[in-house]
Amino acid sequence: MGQDQSSVFDLAAVAAMSNGGNNDPLLPPARFIGEPQKPSRMPYNKYASYSQQIPFDYPERTWPGKRLERAPRWCSVDLRDGNQALVNPMDSERKLRFWNLLVSMGYKEIEVGFPSASETDYDFIRMLIERELIPDDVTIVVLTQAREHLIRKTYECLKGAKRAVVHFYNSVSVLQREVVFRLDKAGIKKLATDAAMLCKELEGDAEGIDLYYEYSPESFTGTEPEYAVEVCNAVIGVIKPTPEHPMIINLPATVEMTTPNVFADQVEYVSNNLVDRDSVVLSLHPHNDEGMGVAATELALLAGADRVEGCLLGNGERTGNVDLVTLGLNMFTQGIDPQIDLSNVPEIRKTVEYCNQIKISERHPYAGNFVFTAFSGSHQDAIKKGLEARQMAAERAGADLDSFVWLVPYLPIDPKDIGRTYEAIIRVNSQSGKGGMAYLLKTNHNLDLPKRLQIEFDRIVQKYADETKREVKDEDIWRLFKDEYLPVEEGGKTAAGAVVGDAADETLEQWGRLKLLKVSVSSGEDGSDTVLKVTLLDRGVNMGDDSDDVVRELSGIGNGPIAAFINAVSSLGINVSVMDYVEHTMTASTDAMAASYVECQIGEEPESEIIWGVGIDSSIITSSLKAIISAINRSER
Amino acid sequence: MGQDQSSVFDLAAVAAMSNGGNNDPLLPPARFIGEPQKPSRMPYNKYASYSQQIPFDYPERTWPGKRLERAPRWCSVDLRDGNQALVNPMDSERKLRFWNLLVSMGYKEIEVGFPSASETDYDFIRMLIERELIPDDVTIVVLTQAREHLIRKTYECLKGAKRAVVHFYNSVSVLQREVVFRLDKAGIKKLATDAAMLCKELEGDAEGIDLYYEYSPESFTGTEPEYAVEVCNAVIGVIKPTPEHPMIINLPATVEMTTPNVFADQVEYVSNNLVDRDSVVLSLHPHNDEGMGVAATELALLAGADRVEGCLLGNGERTGNVDLVTLGLNMFTQGIDPQIDLSNVPEIRKTVEYCNQIKISERHPYAGNFVFTAFSGSHQDAIKKGLEARQMAAERAGADLDSFVWLVPYLPIDPKDIGRTYEAIIRVNSQSGKGGMAYLLKTNHNLDLPKRLQIEFDRIVQKYADETKREVKDEDIWRLFKDEYLPVEEGGKTAAGAVVGDAADETLEQWGRLKLLKVSVSSGEDGSDTVLKVTLLDRGVNMGDDSDDVVRELSGIGNGPIAAFINAVSSLGINVSVMDYVEHTMTASTDAMAASYVECQIGEEPESEIIWGVGIDSSIITSSLKAIISAINRSER
Repeated sequence: MGQDQSSVFDLAAVAAMSNGGNNDPLLPPARFIGEPQKPSRMPYNKYASYSQQIPFDYPERTWPGKRLERAPRWCSVDLRDGNQALVNPMDSERKLRFWNLLVSMGYKEIEVGFPSASETDYDFIRMLIERELIPDDVTIVVLTQAREHLIRKTYECLKGAKRAVVHFYNSVSVLQREVVFRLDKAGIKKLATDAAMLCKELEGDAEGIDLYYEYSPESFTGTEPEYAVEVCNAVIGVIKPTPEHPMIINLPATVEMTTPNVFADQVEYVSNNLVDRDSVVLSLHPHNDEGMGVAATELALLAGADRVEGCLLGNGERTGNVDLVTLGLNMFTQGIDPQIDLSNVPEIRKTVEYCNQIKISERHPYAGNFVFTAFSGSHQDAIKKGLEARQMAAERAGADLDSFVWLVPYLPIDPKDIGRTYEAIIRVNSQSGKGGMAYLLKTNHNLDLPKRLQIEFDRIVQKYADETKREVKDEDIWRLFKDEYLPVEEGGKTAAGAVVGDAADETLEQWGRLKLLKVSVSSGEDGSDTVLKVTLLDRGVNMGDDSDDVVRELSGIGNGPIAAFINAVSSLGINVSVMDYVEHTMTASTDAMAASYVECQIGEEPESEIIWGVGIDSSIITSSLKAIISAINRSER
Repeated sequence: MGQDQSSVFDLAAVAAMSNGGNNDPLLPPARFIGEPQKPSRMPYNKYASYSQQIPFDYPERTWPGKRLERAPRWCSVDLRDGNQALVNPMDSERKLRFWNLLVSMGYKEIEVGFPSASETDYDFIRMLIERELIPDDVTIVVLTQAREHLIRKTYECLKGAKRAVVHFYNSVSVLQREVVFRLDKAGIKKLATDAAMLCKELEGDAEGIDLYYEYSPESFTGTEPEYAVEVCNAVIGVIKPTPEHPMIINLPATVEMTTPNVFADQVEYVSNNLVDRDSVVLSLHPHNDEGMGVAATELALLAGADRVEGCLLGNGERTGNVDLVTLGLNMFTQGIDPQIDLSNVPEIRKTVEYCNQIKISERHPYAGNFVFTAFSGSHQDAIKKGLEARQMAAERAGADLDSFVWLVPYLPIDPKDIGRTYEAIIRVNSQSGKGGMAYLLKTNHNLDLPKRLQIEFDRIVQKYADETKREVKDEDIWRLFKDEYLPVEEGGKTAAGAVVGDAADETLEQWGRLKLLKVSVSSGEDGSDTVLKVTLLDRGVNMGDDSDDVVRELSGIGNGPIAAFINAVSSLGINVSVMDYVEHTMTASTDAMAASYVECQIGEEPESEIIWGVGIDSSIITSSLKAIISAINRSER
């Protein structure tokens, strides 16, 4: 760096001090409601904006109107960039496990290490080569600084490899030119071209290897794009790639420093100004310092990049490298084949967490524990309706449901497609409404509650949620439902116990005045009334001890068994009229169980109440009578 | 939904089946090295692309060339949207703690709940109002569905509030119109305008409250932008906001469905096509399903939005709401005052994790454990040089370092500005080079190693790292350094023990042939030679038991104490010549300790070796002699 050149600090200091922050009178008045926000007293004018540091505009941009059309070439750098950012770098067992995962997922380019900087890396690469663990269609990439003894060691490490990419780099940013290298632009460019020449000279050490090169103008995001192009073109001039034997130019967002529109502009500018573009694979190496690594990558692909380097689930220095799993699945949900097998995200996550010894967040896209969980009642309701509508549409189209188009509110991807399940979708807490509970009962217990019954039961769940102030889990809902509608019979067994096959819930208390013991129904021919005889255990209104129990033989008549039963229980002074009745089978087999739901008005106006009852039995008659008894018992509880 | 209209499923199914994925012959050939990627066999043509679902283009866009200039109006929805996505929703203690955090950070709009849907929310809002916990400059927002009894309950809950925003919404997406509401466009619009009219009608219930409205066309990202504008304009027509009394139109990316350029296009289109734009605060409510929520928000702000709803550290349904902390700090690093106090991120994180009972990721931007940790040696070296260059530039400018412009490689923000420290920046593992170790020794032990000594010591650290395959911690490095250069003297105390004040490390073994017991130096006047007398304990080359120890009185002469000492030890048959010598004080006080580093050639050619020694003492003479002894002892180890 010449003494006559001004320091980047002086320029930036002046720029930063001029920051108007939010008090710039030239800005249009902010629109808001209530009182304005206050200045934070944080030292914001200690920072120069990105455009003050790297002034650049590219009005010729075409990327904003484009859409992704296909997967890029992927390169995993987990074993190098990811590994070097770990508290405990992987041992060879973990490295091999990660390697096997990457190969099985279909990655064809894998950066395997920095062999001249780490014995562990060196030994691992030798193992891959000597034990012939590299499939013919996989290319390994090795990183090296451009210094002779390091490059020699790198080639030594590659001995016996079939094909390899030697990846060399130097930082070209404004800041690092001054503070790290103390060289001017020509001097930094010479570092790059000297390195390229050195590589070419040492090619003799790589006999028998189908050898390619990758050059990274490191800290690209801190570099004037014009200068980055100048350096890259100079390197291309030395390496002399051809369309048949291309080289990789890799643009590292070593530090994410700006909104992704600016990065995309820069990438489109580079793509349009590289010499021998047809002989260059233009690659991205994004990091995530501002939390926009995925977006920066996708926009830069629109801008013309061919290839992406990243790590599974976003491991890497500081905030991580860009997440290859999210990128691939984003494309998948857009109808684009990611060309990588992402069908078992839980398994991928398990291996990655094991190897990196870092847990991912509960909200990590596609892979986090909570991302297929809808907590809000309206979301749950919409999901339920969406799943039903999709099923109906598939039936209408005569299509296989598993492969039928996926359109479900709040679920941008079918969890099954990535090895996850619906099980976790619905949780119910004090914020959620009836949809979730209804979905759970349907999915896990084959009970399809009528809408008004959902509303009724929802109040019960809601009350429980508000009281406990905790998540209401599936088992809580089922317990609440059984206790309310299917109370325990003798021996701790619920009326539905046999059906749903769950363990008897000893925590539920036995309650309910009436219990059905026996029923017989006879109907005459040609539509005459039904005659019903029923044996009930009557424990009395106050449910005293067993000595109060009375077995009652009742009979009734009506236009069907329900009407006849209502007629029968009227002899006990119980006035019931049925407002609504729904019944469905719970499974498709011939010995199916039936679930009956009756909405009853019990008692006489103005003292009557409207209340639901539920019954489950293999006989639809028994199930319907049990449902009425359930309603009666509830009204007397 | 009219029977004559085709279902969204049928349209999407046709579109999805037509996806060419990566096998579309119309796409230009992909550039890559090695063998091509293979189709994944994942069912990608089960998904229609976003542009097949919502065809939209906006070539009039101006946002791609814009840059962020100031903070938007922020609204935290942690207590509502965030809370409803928790496994265990906050109890009132947690809610109040979160509220206090938000208020202390400077948020002026806070969505506090869905009072008509949850008793817990209702009670919490009543507590805020009745206990007068809402500062005059803070506006609360309450969410409600647009149904009469719910709105009445909402107003009832607001009784006594000074100012409030009533936020009503309905889903307007193509999919939900069909599967959830079964209404056509006119029907859905009527839901929104009926709701708006209902709100206006019930305003009487809100006597004494400075009342504002917010309308959200929910699932905006699944909606034709033209139709969303039509609905919003209809609502604006009912509410009749004015520039003095505006309303909020809030665009939810309820599900993130596309690259953020498309979202920005949509927002710019809406911004340009709303009626009474001057009376509307255009707001965003982004989620993060594709991991691009932050980017979508920033680009949509460029596109004309005024306001952002989100959650601290990205809590919220599924993958979370957009992260307000990351957004604010991204602006901060661009020289923009976030107008929110983000100066204590660890405290914010602690409270958020406590209230939400969810941990954030180690790599979370700005807040994660590892984001100010550089593992790579070249990064560490660049950071060290950057910090030094910045300090020098500040001194040159006569500026206060704390407020001087921040430009440091790989550290986009000064950790101190957000309450974090450098302590965690440097870790050393088998991947990292000398920079990290040197930084640690300088920061924690006041030792500024000369470059070649760094290289020598680095090999020792590297070997240790490769052998243990674990992170080399600060204490490991210090132990390695002491053992190598400052070996233990009697009683388990190291030569540097008193200086650095660390506990004696009993695990280090005592070693080293020579030990300095006493030294006296005399120089004649006018530059004559220095005469040195020295008492050494000589344990012999093989370090036998104590009985072998010999106390030696040596003397030597030279042009200075070092030369005289070398002369003196030559009598023991030890040939030393000094190649390099560096010395510095370790603290600024008058009783400062000195650290001496000597690079010695020991032995005679061709058997000689070049080796460093280190000495620490309050006397610079003693420290330099100790350094030579350190080198001699090491060469004989």
